[in-house]
Amino acid sequence: MSDSPKLPHLATLLLEGPVRIALLEDLGRAGDITSQSVVPEDAVARVSLTAREAGIVAGLDVARTAFRLVDTSLKIAVIREDGTRVGPGDDIALIEGPARSILTAERVALNFMGHLSGVATATRSLVDAVEGTGARICCTRKTTPGLRAFEKHAVLAGGGVNHRFGLDDAILIKDNHIAAAGGITKALSAAQQAAGHMTAIEIEVDTLEQLDEALAAGARIILLDNMTPPELEAAVKKAVGKAALEASGKINLETVRAVAETGVDYISSGFITHSAPTLDIGLDFDALVPGAGD
Amino acid sequence: MSDSPKLPHLATLLLEGPVRIALLEDLGRAGDITSQSVVPEDAVARVSLTAREAGIVAGLDVARTAFRLVDTSLKIAVIREDGTRVGPGDDIALIEGPARSILTAERVALNFMGHLSGVATATRSLVDAVEGTGARICCTRKTTPGLRAFEKHAVLAGGGVNHRFGLDDAILIKDNHIAAAGGITKALSAAQQAAGHMTAIEIEVDTLEQLDEALAAGARIILLDNMTPPELEAAVKKAVGKAALEASGKINLETVRAVAETGVDYISSGFITHSAPTLDIGLDFDALVPGAGD
Amino acid sequence: MSDSPKLPHLATLLLEGPVRIALLEDLGRAGDITSQSVVPEDAVARVSLTAREAGIVAGLDVARTAFRLVDTSLKIAVIREDGTRVGPGDDIALIEGPARSILTAERVALNFMGHLSGVATATRSLVDAVEGTGARICCTRKTTPGLRAFEKHAVLAGGGVNHRFGLDDAILIKDNHIAAAGGITKALSAAQQAAGHMTAIEIEVDTLEQLDEALAAGARIILLDNMTPPELEAAVKKAVGKAALEASGKINLETVRAVAETGVDYISSGFITHSAPTLDIGLDFDALVPGAGD
Amino acid sequence: MSDSPKLPHLATLLLEGPVRIALLEDLGRAGDITSQSVVPEDAVARVSLTAREAGIVAGLDVARTAFRLVDTSLKIAVIREDGTRVGPGDDIALIEGPARSILTAERVALNFMGHLSGVATATRSLVDAVEGTGARICCTRKTTPGLRAFEKHAVLAGGGVNHRFGLDDAILIKDNHIAAAGGITKALSAAQQAAGHMTAIEIEVDTLEQLDEALAAGARIILLDNMTPPELEAAVKKAVGKAALEASGKINLETVRAVAETGVDYISSGFITHSAPTLDIGLDFDALVPGAGD
Amino acid sequence: MSDSPKLPHLATLLLEGPVRIALLEDLGRAGDITSQSVVPEDAVARVSLTAREAGIVAGLDVARTAFRLVDTSLKIAVIREDGTRVGPGDDIALIEGPARSILTAERVALNFMGHLSGVATATRSLVDAVEGTGARICCTRKTTPGLRAFEKHAVLAGGGVNHRFGLDDAILIKDNHIAAAGGITKALSAAQQAAGHMTAIEIEVDTLEQLDEALAAGARIILLDNMTPPELEAAVKKAVGKAALEASGKINLETVRAVAETGVDYISSGFITHSAPTLDIGLDFDALVPGAGD
Amino acid sequence: MSDSPKLPHLATLLLEGPVRIALLEDLGRAGDITSQSVVPEDAVARVSLTAREAGIVAGLDVARTAFRLVDTSLKIAVIREDGTRVGPGDDIALIEGPARSILTAERVALNFMGHLSGVATATRSLVDAVEGTGARICCTRKTTPGLRAFEKHAVLAGGGVNHRFGLDDAILIKDNHIAAAGGITKALSAAQQAAGHMTAIEIEVDTLEQLDEALAAGARIILLDNMTPPELEAAVKKAVGKAALEASGKINLETVRAVAETGVDYISSGFITHSAPTLDIGLDFDALVPGAGD
Repeated sequence: MSDSPKLPHLATLLLEGPVRIALLEDLGRAGDITSQSVVPEDAVARVSLTAREAGIVAGLDVARTAFRLVDTSLKIAVIREDGTRVGPGDDIALIEGPARSILTAERVALNFMGHLSGVATATRSLVDAVEGTGARICCTRKTTPGLRAFEKHAVLAGGGVNHRFGLDDAILIKDNHIAAAGGITKALSAAQQAAGHMTAIEIEVDTLEQLDEALAAGARIILLDNMTPPELEAAVKKAVGKAALEASGKINLETVRAVAETGVDYISSGFITHSAPTLDIGLDFDALVPGAGD
Repeated sequence: MSDSPKLPHLATLLLEGPVRIALLEDLGRAGDITSQSVVPEDAVARVSLTAREAGIVAGLDVARTAFRLVDTSLKIAVIREDGTRVGPGDDIALIEGPARSILTAERVALNFMGHLSGVATATRSLVDAVEGTGARICCTRKTTPGLRAFEKHAVLAGGGVNHRFGLDDAILIKDNHIAAAGGITKALSAAQQAAGHMTAIEIEVDTLEQLDEALAAGARIILLDNMTPPELEAAVKKAVGKAALEASGKINLETVRAVAETGVDYISSGFITHSAPTLDIGLDFDALVPGAGD
Repeated sequence: MSDSPKLPHLATLLLEGPVRIALLEDLGRAGDITSQSVVPEDAVARVSLTAREAGIVAGLDVARTAFRLVDTSLKIAVIREDGTRVGPGDDIALIEGPARSILTAERVALNFMGHLSGVATATRSLVDAVEGTGARICCTRKTTPGLRAFEKHAVLAGGGVNHRFGLDDAILIKDNHIAAAGGITKALSAAQQAAGHMTAIEIEVDTLEQLDEALAAGARIILLDNMTPPELEAAVKKAVGKAALEASGKINLETVRAVAETGVDYISSGFITHSAPTLDIGLDFDALVPGAGD
Repeated sequence: MSDSPKLPHLATLLLEGPVRIALLEDLGRAGDITSQSVVPEDAVARVSLTAREAGIVAGLDVARTAFRLVDTSLKIAVIREDGTRVGPGDDIALIEGPARSILTAERVALNFMGHLSGVATATRSLVDAVEGTGARICCTRKTTPGLRAFEKHAVLAGGGVNHRFGLDDAILIKDNHIAAAGGITKALSAAQQAAGHMTAIEIEVDTLEQLDEALAAGARIILLDNMTPPELEAAVKKAVGKAALEASGKINLETVRAVAETGVDYISSGFITHSAPTLDIGLDFDALVPGAGD
Repeated sequence: MSDSPKLPHLATLLLEGPVRIALLEDLGRAGDITSQSVVPEDAVARVSLTAREAGIVAGLDVARTAFRLVDTSLKIAVIREDGTRVGPGDDIALIEGPARSILTAERVALNFMGHLSGVATATRSLVDAVEGTGARICCTRKTTPGLRAFEKHAVLAGGGVNHRFGLDDAILIKDNHIAAAGGITKALSAAQQAAGHMTAIEIEVDTLEQLDEALAAGARIILLDNMTPPELEAAVKKAVGKAALEASGKINLETVRAVAETGVDYISSGFITHSAPTLDIGLDFDALVPGAGD
Repeated sequence: MSDSPKLPHLATLLLEGPVRIALLEDLGRAGDITSQSVVPEDAVARVSLTAREAGIVAGLDVARTAFRLVDTSLKIAVIREDGTRVGPGDDIALIEGPARSILTAERVALNFMGHLSGVATATRSLVDAVEGTGARICCTRKTTPGLRAFEKHAVLAGGGVNHRFGLDDAILIKDNHIAAAGGITKALSAAQQAAGHMTAIEIEVDTLEQLDEALAAGARIILLDNMTPPELEAAVKKAVGKAALEASGKINLETVRAVAETGVDYISSGFITHSAPTLDIGLDFDALVPGAGD
């Protein structure tokens, strides 16, 4: 992987909050009463996180954080890092330590990894489908509440790029904003006046006429919403060298290639974050040493 | 729906935490810089939450909380409550108030409602598929991290029933617990000794022999994992009048009816919470009065 | 203690929140200004947590967490674990490390241990009083706000069993619920319809007639509130083999034996959590090496 | 009560945190599943908080906050304010509103009020016992973790005064600090140098010789620990006009009068906060209008 | 000010967190013991927030939140909004309500307003100094920990524009990043590959040679660090039409005009956030009605 | 420094909260996207925190906490501790470890240290100015919201002493309290009745007549607000041996010596916390080993 860029890591500080919430959600008030009553305190286990179907791995930092927050003595060895393509039976990581701790953290770790690997896998499908066209797949703000940063990271693991992270880090003027502002030119002008040099401004247009108005008003990033491939091709001709173009609306595995071949720069998909099915990952016990005292 | 039981409401205290997290995730540090710079402060709007496809509504209390946390002056009228079946174009709720506030809360409210309605819709599909068999559809702990209580509620909205909420409110002894404890009888005995009268105990078995051992050890709730319909039928015969039976493993729309017809009491599905696609719900501006000062 | 079940441990994640709150409550804004100004920074101490009266130890995990949150370099050796019977002068644990850190954490650690050992001791008194009868002592939701999980654990340390942990993990239908629902049969029916297979349902009855109605409606767990021993005996006869029975109301050391001898399965006491006096535990300095620089 | 000073109120901001924690502790993930399934949504109730035994009321602001956090529509009328002496059957407050909301908040409100009224009642017993002596009863840092500010307020309601609130708002030099510092004079000197003019300094002495040394070193507030009444009397003679004196150690209803008559200014008791039994307060339904739809 | 753009408002959700922290910091455990003991509970006051020196107002939303969090019954009327120029004696807002509540919130409200108005005033001085040059004054990440969003808002109130809000919403490649990456071209290339279309990329250069390399590598936003006016002028010539230029380093009232006249687009100053002296604002009692009961 | 008292340390528990808030404020949702994309993961650096101007160091515990929260593997060696006088070029601390981690924590660590060292430096200027007079410089509650404990500590580092930390740890009766209470005597009497022996009471007076009334009413600590040096001298004569005196109002480097020479005990300054300019401290890379893989 020497010629491809490394995936970024989410800072530990950013991982701990949501993982702690998820663990406390599962532990409730009394904790893992099954393991506490049934599994001997000194039982030790060695387990593997294993893919049960084909896909792209994502979420290992999150899973590691979950195990570590439950028990700092657990040893975790990663075999296939985020962004790796796996098939059924492929081991992703090995974990060793007190059986109670592993069982307590198991479901939360798997819930995160299954979901995030699902997002990465869905992203990768679109990325693969547009290979060679120059178009890049990006995400939206249609994410699972509370998990946006994690899902954005999974999009990177799937080979996509990230759109803005929230309402505050870039301006995206949509149809309702335009209506409220009194037109595309007025809306763009207001945004340009408010934004500093580090804040990107994108505007959504639904027709080629709106595109002309946006370009004339100095738009540098334009979202083409729900246009047909022929319309997109016409838009690319108008905007080339002037603005980056993003296509959105009804993007799926059947439609994405045709959209990409129109020459747009970005194709955004809500599906990859809000509807990607989980990737089936299991936790197998490779060895279990029941407590000596049992 | 006068003859059916009302859905419970989640307490405001339980709603506010996760909704606040989701809003802050979207607002970031600077808030909605698009609306603040482009939409006049005194613009007022009337919008409708509208289904764009068929499904079951869930999450209205959550969406209302999102709008209310952004602006207490927003007026929200619910037209179709949680649990209602909707078709494309059906209005679910009407919202009226400052346009900025509506636009700021829109995405978070829709992210919640789309996801939870997706869970309810997936649940309802299974519930409809087993109609008349007496089997009830239930969920698992394979939920989206941070959203368990909301997803459990969506399962109710879809006509399902809830399994345990976490590791602490009931005992569920699975294969690895049994291995660590040294067998089904030992595991059950340890659990029975630890549990009080208000704590349910369920044990997972993979074979009819294990079922026999579990019944002999006094099991009252038994999870039959990955059994074929003939095996399930045999299990029902053995357990009838002695224990409640839950079937799990590879449950989907194609398989669920056959499983239900074996006579099991409960059928649990991870799919309905971890892989249900979002239900497409949009926010349409019915009226928009740009600010007088603009 | 090889033949008795081990006490469960509260997960570190569950311990840290309340202990951090208690430490911050004591540290305020400026921290331990006495130790900081009076005790040399390099003074080292070895101290023992010692019982000053007879009772049952509980809360060692909590105390350890308090010391560890103040200073991770403190070494803590447990001599008598939770659930152990101690007498005046018995050492419970030894702690060694910077004198300032020990003095800073001392009061919070002792406040937790004194209170929780008090709960365990009060529980044990009732457990001892009913020895041989088959009745088990259990707790209620009449706990100290914020400390429920800790007090429930102390009840286990005292030999009791736990009732439900909150409003959400089991259904308990009391007199006012029955009145609001329109009677025992209606209330039970509504609860049975709402609950899944993992949710226990208990109903409170005040008379033998109500008991009959509850049994006829399929009640499996019944709370007999404020009944006399003869009434309880009659209730046991009616319910035997059909429902588990819990007696409550005016339970104390004088009355509990008579109640237990009626044959009820559980006896619940609010006293053991809301009114148990603290167990006197002190922190003695066995050695103190003032800082070299002093 | 026109000639007595009014009790202070705890700021809403200080009340909400701990009450929210207590409510969430009871609501768990799913909330009040009993009321939600059994009590009609539109049932309305009028209830009274009523004393079942004699004592001093404390905690009404806390209870009000609990009811209000659950449902802002609940109407609460206080009949007997904090600090009032009540007898069995005396109504303390009336509450009216949705029956579900009242039942959901009931236990948390009562747990707070029972505990805090217990603290006030225990304090009042000591205050009454020393009436006319000039000695004032005060509390310690031996409080219930997480509830210190509430218990300190309850001590005021019982007629006592507050000692320091934590490690940071005043200096209290105890035996171990003295040992670590190398003696009373050294310890006092270090504290005097560190403290500003708004920080009180108290030092604990166990003997009359230590008292002499403390007075010589300029001590203005002195804690006399575990001294007999004759020793206390001698101490008062030495310190009169020079320092305020606080007696502590083995203070109870039998001993407190003799201690007070020695002429000490303050008598501190840990019992009133760490071991006061709850005051029995109940919630009675005066009227219940089941929902029309039921 | 009818022809100038309105200042944005920070969302209530963004205001409440830091204001609550500040209030709890001041209230501590026991709250405002002075007002509680000295000011009659029913005393009512009317006060004005008044400037004591010339400057620019900022922070009114924050101050309003502080008063509202302490007591929702307080009435607050704003006379001069954020961004307004005030002189000594000018009233900024009027507040009316319970005297205790006003006194309790006073210091926190003034601490916020004094600090933020100080930031706005310092910003305005620089903005005024460069008037007519086309250069815009912007801020940095050299802000007061915990107050960044508030200070960024105050910069807007002073007529400046905002730089990025944190490490995550834009890329800024500085000297150490360049050194670690192995040069300007490599660093820019890595950043361009990682960033999506909504993420701005800026690179810092110290010399005109570095500027050439950055421009050749496709830089669109360039930070010129510590250059002299002649160097800046040369840089502007090279970059005109290709990249936006930001000058930084030793910017103050004496130097800023000369820098602005070189033709750079932005001038960034750390001083305006990290070293702006407070603007003196006082709270004057216009009327005080002591409680009738006093 | 063997003959001067050591500065206290803030407890880790008190440091972590505000530092975590500051780091999350800077990291936002996605973390340090510049370092993640530009700096090789295995690059290692050795850097020094270096003063760029003369002043007093403060905040090293805070900076250490910031680095440690980002990456526990960072090694930090302190060269000049809090309270030390430094000149331009003096190294304060050395840090070694992963370059990404150092760059991620850099700004937050410097923002804290620059601000707190600025407070210490401003304090020291006043302390030096009054040397030999016996007057001590103290702070006020005019602090930066959220940073009070840190700024109070910086005041100690600058040789000052601390005034009260908040509204709850001491009583300070100001002009508006006096007006609301109906006069100095009434106000003091109410405060004395409410306060225990550990709560200091200070009262503000504006004239010598008020001073007389305060002394007659038993005031032991008196704040002389905005008095001229001759008035202060007269006040000292009246109060000597009876009360500690604190002067406040228009204290600066020009005026403070004259005030100190009047004989007052304390001189309080808001400037040192609310308007002290930052001390310029930089982070220099002494060595940087780019990642082997780069």
